[in-house]
Amino acid sequence: MFKFEDHKCYQMPAHFGGWDYNPTGTIYRDTVQISYAYATDGNRLADYLPEGFELLRPELLIAYVQSREVEWLGGAAYNLIEVSVPARFQGRQDRVEGQFALVVWENKTAPILGGREECGIPKIFADIQDLHKIQQNYFTNASYEGNTFLRLEMHEAQPVDAPKLADIKAQPVERVLFGWRYISKVGGPGAELSQPILYPQSTEINNAWIGKGTVQWTQLKPEQSPQQWHIIKALAELPMNELTPAMMVQGVSTLKSMQARVLR
Amino acid sequence: MFKFEDHKCYQMPAHFGGWDYNPTGTIYRDTVQISYAYATDGNRLADYLPEGFELLRPELLIAYVQSREVEWLGGAAYNLIEVSVPARFQGRQDRVEGQFALVVWENKTAPILGGREECGIPKIFADIQDLHKIQQNYFTNASYEGNTFLRLEMHEAQPVDAPKLADIKAQPVERVLFGWRYISKVGGPGAELSQPILYPQSTEINNAWIGKGTVQWTQLKPEQSPQQWHIIKALAELPMNELTPAMMVQGVSTLKSMQARVLR
Amino acid sequence: MFKFEDHKCYQMPAHFGGWDYNPTGTIYRDTVQISYAYATDGNRLADYLPEGFELLRPELLIAYVQSREVEWLGGAAYNLIEVSVPARFQGRQDRVEGQFALVVWENKTAPILGGREECGIPKIFADIQDLHKIQQNYFTNASYEGNTFLRLEMHEAQPVDAPKLADIKAQPVERVLFGWRYISKVGGPGAELSQPILYPQSTEINNAWIGKGTVQWTQLKPEQSPQQWHIIKALAELPMNELTPAMMVQGVSTLKSMQARVLR
Amino acid sequence: MFKFEDHKCYQMPAHFGGWDYNPTGTIYRDTVQISYAYATDGNRLADYLPEGFELLRPELLIAYVQSREVEWLGGAAYNLIEVSVPARFQGRQDRVEGQFALVVWENKTAPILGGREECGIPKIFADIQDLHKIQQNYFTNASYEGNTFLRLEMHEAQPVDAPKLADIKAQPVERVLFGWRYISKVGGPGAELSQPILYPQSTEINNAWIGKGTVQWTQLKPEQSPQQWHIIKALAELPMNELTPAMMVQGVSTLKSMQARVLR
Repeated sequence: MFKFEDHKCYQMPAHFGGWDYNPTGTIYRDTVQISYAYATDGNRLADYLPEGFELLRPELLIAYVQSREVEWLGGAAYNLIEVSVPARFQGRQDRVEGQFALVVWENKTAPILGGREECGIPKIFADIQDLHKIQQNYFTNASYEGNTFLRLEMHEAQPVDAPKLADIKAQPVERVLFGWRYISKVGGPGAELSQPILYPQSTEINNAWIGKGTVQWTQLKPEQSPQQWHIIKALAELPMNELTPAMMVQGVSTLKSMQARVLR
Repeated sequence: MFKFEDHKCYQMPAHFGGWDYNPTGTIYRDTVQISYAYATDGNRLADYLPEGFELLRPELLIAYVQSREVEWLGGAAYNLIEVSVPARFQGRQDRVEGQFALVVWENKTAPILGGREECGIPKIFADIQDLHKIQQNYFTNASYEGNTFLRLEMHEAQPVDAPKLADIKAQPVERVLFGWRYISKVGGPGAELSQPILYPQSTEINNAWIGKGTVQWTQLKPEQSPQQWHIIKALAELPMNELTPAMMVQGVSTLKSMQARVLR
Repeated sequence: MFKFEDHKCYQMPAHFGGWDYNPTGTIYRDTVQISYAYATDGNRLADYLPEGFELLRPELLIAYVQSREVEWLGGAAYNLIEVSVPARFQGRQDRVEGQFALVVWENKTAPILGGREECGIPKIFADIQDLHKIQQNYFTNASYEGNTFLRLEMHEAQPVDAPKLADIKAQPVERVLFGWRYISKVGGPGAELSQPILYPQSTEINNAWIGKGTVQWTQLKPEQSPQQWHIIKALAELPMNELTPAMMVQGVSTLKSMQARVLR
Repeated sequence: MFKFEDHKCYQMPAHFGGWDYNPTGTIYRDTVQISYAYATDGNRLADYLPEGFELLRPELLIAYVQSREVEWLGGAAYNLIEVSVPARFQGRQDRVEGQFALVVWENKTAPILGGREECGIPKIFADIQDLHKIQQNYFTNASYEGNTFLRLEMHEAQPVDAPKLADIKAQPVERVLFGWRYISKVGGPGAELSQPILYPQSTEINNAWIGKGTVQWTQLKPEQSPQQWHIIKALAELPMNELTPAMMVQGVSTLKSMQARVLR
């Protein structure tokens, strides 16, 4: 008979064995991230924030991350696009500022499963291209079964100047990502688990570039992506005001899922 | 602010809205299933059964299912390979016979997420080929990032004779699939949820064939599939005795996830 | 030393051996084809017809073909989208009517190579979805590295009436497909081979449906598909007048590449 | 009417227009190459060399190349595995040493088409993984429709010492790659074109590493890859003696297809 051990960590299928708890973060040795931000309608954004969270600024944040040499995946690579808003959690005990993840698309299933089940990060699948690069111009897109829904570009990327880079490199960028773990009751409506979650991450930056960004949403019909069209529609309908310059950084990231915790 | 409604169903990301509870099953209009079974070492098999389950026979069951025209996926298709054992659940209240899912590989993320989170079916990702067909011979394989780990063949498929087909078609095949939903504590070892689950499914069969089956496992090194190599190793090391003839059926399946329940 | 044998057929790499000439056609046992046609600007269309060909009607033909159980590919499947115009070849010797292939997208490389090198069919690669089916509605799309450029739909497909089906089934549909084999000089401009080609094909139809078709082109920027954007642009800019009803047929096709010949 | 212009270059479909002849090579800005070599049976190898070529050494060369930021592909990436032998061409006019390409697998169709049609390089399709990297160990594999046929590893890669690197960087590595362009007669056995071809390439190396290489072939059954199994079999059956250390280089490559020429 298979027996669970309380001090071990498991993922389904659990019955082939678990692993020892290890609080060390998961290291991503080669990540390239391009960040976009734009002002938008704060009232609409607030509609997507669950109880306990409030909007810090009426701003939508989009980060494309291309991760390679990921050791926990056998040295493989994957890409993600994270859409979040700056938010504060104000609970009975906790008061924390960070970024609330509205949705994260990833092009590999394994990190989707861990992120959802262990940390409540709303990861779903999309095909996401590796960065295409022509001179200092970068291109990527996200699609679902051949249907493009997001195109991200960065033009004329220039290295940030030396003093600024020195500043950026001086210390790791610590980040609080907020998720909401929702696990339904078996066989019925309602929640078995419904929890706000804090997931700490940090990045040591080695290089940084700044350039002109473009973000282009394309809505899909329900039959093109039954599980995602309403998410894409919600995001595509947000006004896109004052798109800030795109920032690209290359560095080493540490995901501290074992230091994640339920907010109270 | 986004508010959860108790009578609604949600999946992460929940904050873009849920849907009304609907007890009707999910219909798969065009499924082709090839089933393999072989006698093996019952003691080893029993090691993978969690508390409450006992082995009915020392037998490993492998089902390849090619599903098309799946409405909840916008009419798309996907393939799965389910490995299970015949088992009985014997709890304080429930005593049920069915098949305990050791692992289910699927080549699409959306059904993996629902199956895991809502029903505790241990679904993980693999590339799984559509059936290749040459005359009455069928071939498929499963691989992870280019590494083949399972090859399934069916040779000289012959339609079952008319009386047997009539029998098979006379009524839907009702099946109990057992899963175990395990959701870890956030940030640490141990379980937040750890539940045996009953997931009912039924299939109306339109056609059936019988033929010679072959099952070939290939073990992978940990770096070829860090999350799966130990599962493949456990299954590949089981002795393969008395492989029964392969059975192929074509029909309409109904997955009754809304009638799934926690076993007690 | 490897020696070529004159009576054998080869494909690169030739030095691992060729195969015996066999005039029998290649059989595709399970093909589903959806055909679209629309009136357009004949002058523009004529610009794409090389010497010897003339336009029969100012009409663009688009055929989506989903082929399964393809024996020469080991029983595998692939999809194609063929764009052609009704044309007559008028040479010194030959006068033939058929369809001139403007471009053919396929989602598998092996048939692309044979079609191009042996028959001058202008096949290029795209991701092409299997048909998605919801009730009697069919959907597919073509994309290049995540960039959608063509969406084809067929709505409310209805079986053709029995007399019409009987007519259709009465005899194979024989079709002449025209290509133009162009092989450049090594290392420089100009042609080593530049030949109009006739490629005969036939289809035995088992079933046929008629419905409402839609064709939607999306232009790409050069950097999204450097080898194809100008083709997509040329086709997308053609006016789409009087789209005829979409016709879907299911049947067995025979590609007679060994009966292909250079037109004179 | 579409008219070919003699001074232009075309690829099928030609009728959408050609491009101006440009003798400049095609630049690949970011290539990582891992090279393997092993002594083998010279008699068997010689069986694969067409008339005019002779073996320089009984050695099989395997190069894995991961190319990124490829401008002619819109900044996209692709991978290839080239299998070649050191050879001399001895014709009536030409006497040249280089590497004769036995087969080249690539995971993108566009470069396959150009390489075959314009330079006679025997490129065919396979799925080829990006390098997986764990510490100083690199892994990749090639598969066809889920069937692994080649696994390449490099362990404990160490930078070459400074003087050696200085040597390597001192000048571009000029390489002669030999192909054989074979284009069949339309509709029948025998050749329309059958030509030995010299294709010059050069690489400026920025970094180099040396390590322990492993090469593992897995034969496929004909139905697993009808167009390739005999090639894989021929290569897998060659004895693998004295595998040299694997060499990895990172640099900028220039493919000079416009300086390719037919050997005489």
